[in-house]
Amino acid sequence: MPEFLTLLPPDEARALLLSHLSAPEPDSESISVPHALSRILAEDILAPQPLPDFQRSTVDGYAVRAQDTFGASDSLPAYLTLIGEVPMGDAPAFEIGPGQCALIHTGGMLPPGADAVVMLEYTQLVRHTEEKEISVRSVAMGSEIEVSRAVADGENIIRIGEDVAQGQRILPKGTLLRPAEIGGLMALGITSVRVVKPVKVGLISTGDEIVDPSQTPRPGQVRDINSYSLGALVEKSGGVAKRYGIFSDQFQALKEAAAQALSECDAVVITAGSSASTRDMTAEVIRSLGEPGVLVHGINTRPGKPTILGACNGKAVIGLPGNPVSALVNGYLFVVPVIEKMLGVLPKPKAAVQARLTVNLPSQAGREDWWPVKLLPSPARRGGGGEVYDAEPIFGKSNLIFTLAAADGLLRIPPNATGLSAGEMVEVMLI
Amino acid sequence: MPEFLTLLPPDEARALLLSHLSAPEPDSESISVPHALSRILAEDILAPQPLPDFQRSTVDGYAVRAQDTFGASDSLPAYLTLIGEVPMGDAPAFEIGPGQCALIHTGGMLPPGADAVVMLEYTQLVRHTEEKEISVRSVAMGSEIEVSRAVADGENIIRIGEDVAQGQRILPKGTLLRPAEIGGLMALGITSVRVVKPVKVGLISTGDEIVDPSQTPRPGQVRDINSYSLGALVEKSGGVAKRYGIFSDQFQALKEAAAQALSECDAVVITAGSSASTRDMTAEVIRSLGEPGVLVHGINTRPGKPTILGACNGKAVIGLPGNPVSALVNGYLFVVPVIEKMLGVLPKPKAAVQARLTVNLPSQAGREDWWPVKLLPSPARRGGGGEVYDAEPIFGKSNLIFTLAAADGLLRIPPNATGLSAGEMVEVMLI
Repeated sequence: MPEFLTLLPPDEARALLLSHLSAPEPDSESISVPHALSRILAEDILAPQPLPDFQRSTVDGYAVRAQDTFGASDSLPAYLTLIGEVPMGDAPAFEIGPGQCALIHTGGMLPPGADAVVMLEYTQLVRHTEEKEISVRSVAMGSEIEVSRAVADGENIIRIGEDVAQGQRILPKGTLLRPAEIGGLMALGITSVRVVKPVKVGLISTGDEIVDPSQTPRPGQVRDINSYSLGALVEKSGGVAKRYGIFSDQFQALKEAAAQALSECDAVVITAGSSASTRDMTAEVIRSLGEPGVLVHGINTRPGKPTILGACNGKAVIGLPGNPVSALVNGYLFVVPVIEKMLGVLPKPKAAVQARLTVNLPSQAGREDWWPVKLLPSPARRGGGGEVYDAEPIFGKSNLIFTLAAADGLLRIPPNATGLSAGEMVEVMLI
Repeated sequence: MPEFLTLLPPDEARALLLSHLSAPEPDSESISVPHALSRILAEDILAPQPLPDFQRSTVDGYAVRAQDTFGASDSLPAYLTLIGEVPMGDAPAFEIGPGQCALIHTGGMLPPGADAVVMLEYTQLVRHTEEKEISVRSVAMGSEIEVSRAVADGENIIRIGEDVAQGQRILPKGTLLRPAEIGGLMALGITSVRVVKPVKVGLISTGDEIVDPSQTPRPGQVRDINSYSLGALVEKSGGVAKRYGIFSDQFQALKEAAAQALSECDAVVITAGSSASTRDMTAEVIRSLGEPGVLVHGINTRPGKPTILGACNGKAVIGLPGNPVSALVNGYLFVVPVIEKMLGVLPKPKAAVQARLTVNLPSQAGREDWWPVKLLPSPARRGGGGEVYDAEPIFGKSNLIFTLAAADGLLRIPPNATGLSAGEMVEVMLI
């Protein structure tokens, strides 16, 4: 009855699982860009036009022909004739000839003939006699402008296509749409895009002792946690969870539910009842669902040793331990990467927090441990001025869900370490 | 006409702004817990019951009276009489007397009389003669069990209330609901909670040259980016954006729109047209909306120097530069903290990625710079086995939105530095 499993290292187990998922073109749908935050592009986006599509000034000043300013200095200024003001949001109706200039505002369109802008700070109105500053708008055309600094061709302007060139692939398929991408798409007038549909993950809880959270458990019963904590994790990762309910330790009913979930979803997660017999049943169900079936039974992690990874006809079927902490931690380790693969999302750096471990944490060589930790701001400040955190492990049995609710993140002890020492800087994955 | 602003350090500017926001009890609503991911609790949650509410075994084994095993060893085992099996999900119908034990599975309810569980591994069935292993379920009651290891009182069990005690404040007001909290609430049968309503942020774009993204700009016109990039940022931060449209550089119309936005929203963000005159107009509008009006005009950051922070009758009114990069970066720096304060969310460590800077980045003492950077996996691995990234700054004018779309995050050069050196480890805030 005790389990003797051949334990695989988690990275190897994960790679094996992912290699068995057929990644067909994921289902996509069209969505309006302002509603597309956090969605994944299902298509490459090419720029339909250059950006900007006209030469713009980046400063307030005078549009000039650069060569007219060459050699200009405080002691030997250049003199240019003001022939107009560039209207914002419109094309100027004039051209800059030799010795001429026009008032231009930041973002204004460069008039034909001009190839640079002199900042207002390096200019003076010559024919102005009053003491008080005058509004630029009241400058009489025909005034003379004294320029005390030379500008190079192209200075203080954005050229056509400097942000993006026409036809350029601006966002590849698989891009996660963040505020910057939303803005960039709108800048190009791309107001709808195709995005990947959320990955459907079927969730099944097993165990004679598990009841729905809305019920009052009788003595010996506990409420289903895993369908909900994992459901939230699926949602957070770009999936949509479908709950298939709670199954007592009966093979046939579980098998039928799992088969239905597999046919309706992109992946299935079965959280085992906590007894050994249910765990074995999960493996048997996975074997019955399709080829190749169980890939990994037993992973060298804590918590999560009895985790089962399977693939049935190209879809992942994962058996997680019933203990809520084990289930959720292993959800982060194995379910999230499956969702990301099915979504086709491009790999992104994982955010973490650097912190100073407060105590010694022993581990076992060869095993990867994940500890829930609380991050506490430390009075010290880092060199760069950033906050320093202390990472305080939360000790508690892996069936206590509130050890995770109290945690800011998970601390990994890598398989090649026999522990970590108090005072060491560690990386905490936020949860 | 050039701006001469008294520049405040960004941390000081932010603190000043936040101190002027009256933080009344935020509006709340009731929500079903399975739909409450990423919402903020509007109430303290107390445990209505202890968790677990019965003593549970953490292993597969035999429920015993610990004292009956004291002194037991391989050479001198203790012998106990098996009187039953604890059914999963039910209260055992028997009591453990002296010298007795009962088969129990992980998660099973401890029978009265028992105070510890001996793991199956340290037991033998004595009266069993067959060679092959038998199922625990077929063990004949009345058999004798040989116990080769002593257990202490309480060993291998979870006590009542070990996860949470009845009446304990398990989640304080202001808690962000993550998968672990969702699971914890369901474990206690708390299937709905009060959460803070999303903070409403009114967005206004100004500038004669700005047109709606659905329009084809005429020469000299550009599409509105900021209403959409900032709208996505607001949404990402737990707010809901309300767009009030685009206003040309006319004071009265802008003032009326801003007043309406202020009355309907919890905060207002005006992105200035890019010319100096529009920026001045924004400050004037903020002054006209309520007391104290403009708090900060000019912040010692790049990009974002002309940012205006104001508070009108307890609500933030922020004027951001019109350049899309400046607007979005300063949205992260000032709009997000306002939303977090209005939501009442408890402070959380900010996720970041540690990376090695690839080039020297000069800065100006006293000024805080934020550089868009790309994070590239480096072939090196860190001590803990984590990924090492190279941080490669993206050089480009602050009006080029695709410099941000290409970036993984923002790198901060603190005000007390005159730059950062190639090879330095830096912290990159993911965007």
